[in-house]
Amino acid sequence: MSIFEITKKDSQSNARMGVLQTAHGPVSTPVFMPVGTRAAVKGIMPKELSDAGSQIVLANTFHLMLRPGVSVIEKSGGLHKFMAWDGPILTDSGGFQVFSLSSINATDDSGTEFSSPYDGAKIKLDATGATNIQNRLGADIIMCFDQCPAFDAKPPEQQKAVERTIKWAKICKQSHSNDKQLLFAIVQGQTDKQLRQNCAEELIKMDFVGYAIGGLSVGEGPEQMIETTHFTAPLLPENKPRYLMGVGTPADIIQAVEAGVDMFDCVMPTRNGRNALAFTENGPIRLRNSAYIDDFGPVDASCQCLCCRTFSRAAIRHFFNVSEMLGPIMLALHNIVFYHNLMDKIRKNIENGTFKIWAAQALSSPAYGRSIEANKNMGNIES
Amino acid sequence: MSIFEITKKDSQSNARMGVLQTAHGPVSTPVFMPVGTRAAVKGIMPKELSDAGSQIVLANTFHLMLRPGVSVIEKSGGLHKFMAWDGPILTDSGGFQVFSLSSINATDDSGTEFSSPYDGAKIKLDATGATNIQNRLGADIIMCFDQCPAFDAKPPEQQKAVERTIKWAKICKQSHSNDKQLLFAIVQGQTDKQLRQNCAEELIKMDFVGYAIGGLSVGEGPEQMIETTHFTAPLLPENKPRYLMGVGTPADIIQAVEAGVDMFDCVMPTRNGRNALAFTENGPIRLRNSAYIDDFGPVDASCQCLCCRTFSRAAIRHFFNVSEMLGPIMLALHNIVFYHNLMDKIRKNIENGTFKIWAAQALSSPAYGRSIEANKNMGNIES
Repeated sequence: MSIFEITKKDSQSNARMGVLQTAHGPVSTPVFMPVGTRAAVKGIMPKELSDAGSQIVLANTFHLMLRPGVSVIEKSGGLHKFMAWDGPILTDSGGFQVFSLSSINATDDSGTEFSSPYDGAKIKLDATGATNIQNRLGADIIMCFDQCPAFDAKPPEQQKAVERTIKWAKICKQSHSNDKQLLFAIVQGQTDKQLRQNCAEELIKMDFVGYAIGGLSVGEGPEQMIETTHFTAPLLPENKPRYLMGVGTPADIIQAVEAGVDMFDCVMPTRNGRNALAFTENGPIRLRNSAYIDDFGPVDASCQCLCCRTFSRAAIRHFFNVSEMLGPIMLALHNIVFYHNLMDKIRKNIENGTFKIWAAQALSSPAYGRSIEANKNMGNIES
Repeated sequence: MSIFEITKKDSQSNARMGVLQTAHGPVSTPVFMPVGTRAAVKGIMPKELSDAGSQIVLANTFHLMLRPGVSVIEKSGGLHKFMAWDGPILTDSGGFQVFSLSSINATDDSGTEFSSPYDGAKIKLDATGATNIQNRLGADIIMCFDQCPAFDAKPPEQQKAVERTIKWAKICKQSHSNDKQLLFAIVQGQTDKQLRQNCAEELIKMDFVGYAIGGLSVGEGPEQMIETTHFTAPLLPENKPRYLMGVGTPADIIQAVEAGVDMFDCVMPTRNGRNALAFTENGPIRLRNSAYIDDFGPVDASCQCLCCRTFSRAAIRHFFNVSEMLGPIMLALHNIVFYHNLMDKIRKNIENGTFKIWAAQALSSPAYGRSIEANKNMGNIES
């Protein structure tokens, strides 16, 4: 049986709806995966996350290998048990983080040596190591170790990164030793179509069970990101899941679904929530604003989340104003629900054959339009 | 009908068990009240607090009058609605906080003028004002505005504070305008028995529905605190609830119950929890300790709280190690449950006539003994 079944294809775009089977249950796609970098979605209990409609959560190899260390999680019985989340988990390989968060000492074809951002310790990470660590962490979906250069890196550097990403993907596939885990490859190549095509073709030859588009949402801007996604997604096998890493705003997600993407993760709902921004049906609002001091309605009148059922805008504003943890926690949770509701609408409209017309309306709406002022380009790490 | 019914008296000590009726339901005493200074018990949802066994929570007039302001809470429909807590609430009058947290500009018999710790604004608070604000906040139990001098203040200052506390209590009683709220008086006088006795006698003449012992746990040390409590509690009317403010450790509470106290509040479980200290049946443990890095048992094997049902010690240690909010939240919640379990045991042993023998054993146990190393003398404000 295939691990991915497409249950409905949109006739007017590349959008599709499907079910991805994992060792911890099925995932309905298109799906948004909340980010739990360090084995927790910041401040949110697993039960609350599940009640919010989360199907699958992300965690990060790079951070977990440094704290608490892979052996601790392995000895605890694996990542699911450690973080008390019994549903599907995806771990990123650490490739992105090695290159974006640490001081690199040396990178060559064999891997990279970096200094730990916690204590400066020198650590080597390579394709074999990243795969082995992910095998030991035990997530349901694991990612190949890739090289993600800065978006303004020179062409030879982009070229080199693609070559290494291909070479390392082969090593990851050979090293992968747990057939309950789904290993996805990552297509790099920034906004260069030739590089993207080469990378995709080489990775497809290796026959992975799923493919990600990496190296986007790193500063290139939404137009370039969407254009690259629309170019790259159709290059990937139609019958396999496609994951756009670290993206994005509601508009980004709608346009990427249109391009044929099935899976998303981003810190946008959680980090913005912790910074007092709430997504609502009428567009984002900033709860620190004095306009809400005596606004006793819920954060979003259309929402049934724990935050909106419990507290008024005035109470949430007060919590932020006095540095009370319930403010950030409640808005992060609300925003996760907002994202899951968006994905519900996307799936429902694909199912009903109304996706294209719904998407056009959504993209000009205050809730999902391009005009929203949330912090963008946030990647997939909760720092 | 009396608002307080004693259902069982201990024959070997002054301990008693009872039920206190409030506008938001009954409270079984002896009771511990978690501290929600700024209209929230830090990081803990009302539902979690209720599931933890909390019967009544504390909030603070001084902090709420400054942020978000009494008119906001009043307009929202009152404190219960604002903080989404439908059970009983007690507000402290702000007297203690005016004298301990702000720069005093001037204090005289009419009240005190202080500078707001938020923005330096000059604010006058007096007996009439503190009562009026508490009437508008709408808690079930409200407190008289009192003067609480430093524990090492000179005798004339202690004497003056007692005189003002008596004078102000009379004004508070006259000003009190909501008969659904129970107004308690506060006995001051530090460790001076003559002052305590005078203060108690004068307040009793005014016939309040409940009496608190204030001005303790401010640096005088546990022996003096317990001695003063054992002297003062029996001076108060036997058929009315007695509340020892801002106390204390498990041992403090057991000894104060022995003296005939019915109600307690303290930041000890919550603030210590946020600082990685967990109370357990084998004594407090500090979860930052490296001993717990691969300890996969629950924080307390005898506990059924959300933290102990969900996470291992290793996971909680990891959360503190990477500044993940779930660490402080989970341990604060666990410690609240520990305190509520202590009160359950106290009530059960009073009911069974075994309190005195149980208390003696408890006071020499690792869980409740005097040797515990939690931070003491914490008062009743979560700063």
